Amino acid sequence: MTSPRLKAEIARQYGTPAVVIDLDVVERNIARVQGYCDRAGIANRPHIKTHKSPLIAKLQRDAGARGLACQKLGEAEVMAAAGLDDLLICYNLLGEHKIGRLGRLLASTSVTVSADNPTVVRGLAPAAAIAGRALPVVVECDTGRKRAGVETAAEAVALARLIASTEGLRFAGLLLYPPDGGTAAAQGFLDTVKAGLAAEGLPQPAIVSTGGTPNLRDLGALGGATEHRAGTYIYNDRMMMMAGAATPADCALTILATVVSRATDDRGILDAGSKALTSDKRDCDGYGAILDYPDSRIHALAEEHGFLDLTGSAARPAVGELVRIVPNHVCVAVNMTDRAIAVRKDTIVGEIAIAARGKTG
Amino acid sequence: MTSPRLKAEIARQYGTPAVVIDLDVVERNIARVQGYCDRAGIANRPHIKTHKSPLIAKLQRDAGARGLACQKLGEAEVMAAAGLDDLLICYNLLGEHKIGRLGRLLASTSVTVSADNPTVVRGLAPAAAIAGRALPVVVECDTGRKRAGVETAAEAVALARLIASTEGLRFAGLLLYPPDGGTAAAQGFLDTVKAGLAAEGLPQPAIVSTGGTPNLRDLGALGGATEHRAGTYIYNDRMMMMAGAATPADCALTILATVVSRATDDRGILDAGSKALTSDKRDCDGYGAILDYPDSRIHALAEEHGFLDLTGSAARPAVGELVRIVPNHVCVAVNMTDRAIAVRKDTIVGEIAIAARGKTG
Repeated sequence: MTSPRLKAEIARQYGTPAVVIDLDVVERNIARVQGYCDRAGIANRPHIKTHKSPLIAKLQRDAGARGLACQKLGEAEVMAAAGLDDLLICYNLLGEHKIGRLGRLLASTSVTVSADNPTVVRGLAPAAAIAGRALPVVVECDTGRKRAGVETAAEAVALARLIASTEGLRFAGLLLYPPDGGTAAAQGFLDTVKAGLAAEGLPQPAIVSTGGTPNLRDLGALGGATEHRAGTYIYNDRMMMMAGAATPADCALTILATVVSRATDDRGILDAGSKALTSDKRDCDGYGAILDYPDSRIHALAEEHGFLDLTGSAARPAVGELVRIVPNHVCVAVNMTDRAIAVRKDTIVGEIAIAARGKTG
Repeated sequence: MTSPRLKAEIARQYGTPAVVIDLDVVERNIARVQGYCDRAGIANRPHIKTHKSPLIAKLQRDAGARGLACQKLGEAEVMAAAGLDDLLICYNLLGEHKIGRLGRLLASTSVTVSADNPTVVRGLAPAAAIAGRALPVVVECDTGRKRAGVETAAEAVALARLIASTEGLRFAGLLLYPPDGGTAAAQGFLDTVKAGLAAEGLPQPAIVSTGGTPNLRDLGALGGATEHRAGTYIYNDRMMMMAGAATPADCALTILATVVSRATDDRGILDAGSKALTSDKRDCDGYGAILDYPDSRIHALAEEHGFLDLTGSAARPAVGELVRIVPNHVCVAVNMTDRAIAVRKDTIVGEIAIAARGKTG
């Protein structure tokens, strides 16, 4: 999405800020990552948390993905309603409301869930009863992120035993999410769990799922891994570029914004603020990269204002000018809009519904 | 919203995370701020950017508000569609898409817009032509925030002259948004503009609009101010408490979340992450205050995970426990959901549609 004509046409038809997705780049990203997985002999289970779109999920499936990963039950419901199957929900689900929904989802869709503690495991059984079939459960293991996941191999084995012995549940494997460079530690954890399962006469894990776009570079390095969940690669963002996992040419999503104010020579305001770009900063400089003015900085955000610092930029945009922004963290930026504009080369080719936006439950 | 029974009932009916609004507190906040305005002789023009809800806007109107402020055109369209009138859009609008929409809105609704530069002013005229009636325009003045707004009184007068001389537009006044403690500087700016307008034979500003919830404490201090736009006071949040503009009892909105993981004794995971609480941190400690465990901290967020640090908390929640979180910045947290749950005392009384959520354009 480079031509002034296309930028103007998007603004004319949709106004700004607009979320723009280049489907040519999306298809390249899909093919590249599917190729990585195929060559490593690892099943590709893309994580839909990034795109939240059944349309994009179907492109991934049709290119060879084996199932999808969802972070929340609501995301899985949207994918299932669109006819997508083999869904792994990477989250501890509990509470009457969720378990009822999970049971109804399981009745018609192949779905696997994760769990990292006995309270969650015991709470899952009614979902199988509602569905009238077994619910596969993987044990989430912490391999360094200190987020969710059991901390020790012994806990993983104990949880596998509880799952295997709970009516309606089936122990399906292990969910890992090693940090960058964490393969060696994950290998030790995994091998210890497998030995423990064998010692107890429990089945070996059918699924050993790893995750993360930066971790694609280590694909195949973890012995025993069966599948990989990468999400962000579909669009990429500044974080992925900082992690060395993407180049500017791999960034499929930009936010088209208008310069609405230039109160002084060295600053300006964009009509994209924290409600379009989000305040997710991570280690990035400012709140998005402006492709058209790479030496400018979005140094602060109000809800509807992006604060432009132009002091380092010889070229400076005029009021009314359209600029394209690569967000810091694309997953949360996608989540701010119900609709994206799909383009190819110099043409608008359609709209993409972000049907699983806001499905936090 | 304090009883365990109510928390459980919300979780049972809606699941978590859930955005919960206490209408008793909302009504107290509305009455208190309307009282401030009435006593100061300043018209109350609540900013709907916080609640994004026609239902809440009507409560404000019925309590005595004179019109509403909207930050974006899309928000004004939602309010107008719900029958609300006298809308001030505090934003530079430009581009064919927006001007066409503005013209259609103006045809049926009393709407005023702001502008801080000649490009925007000249671009507004077609909206009046579409509507078949004059468009009132206020000049946005920077009184210290270095966001949008003309920097000098001379620029403000020049822009007023341009508005007054542009077919279809009417100079309606001045939009100010002084920072905390910025009344004296704003007074100097305002007085100089008024003198300049008089010297040029231009009309005096019919509207002199100030803004901000913390600035309510200075209401009436700016001589010549006619109205005030406060938004956040409707729900309040941690930022407002830090600014001394609210107490915990004034916080009407909480996010009900579930503790889904407790991997070790001193940490846990909530099912509310950056897609529920947002990464808007400002100067707050962590990403929200947990009312039920005030000594715990949400020290980090992933998209769907709130990272609980319990080291400082003697009391520690179990997996499955429900907790209530006051967000750092309520306006952006509201923008993450399409629906909030309305409660009074110990009872769910209905749902509130966040109809203007995501209207960034």
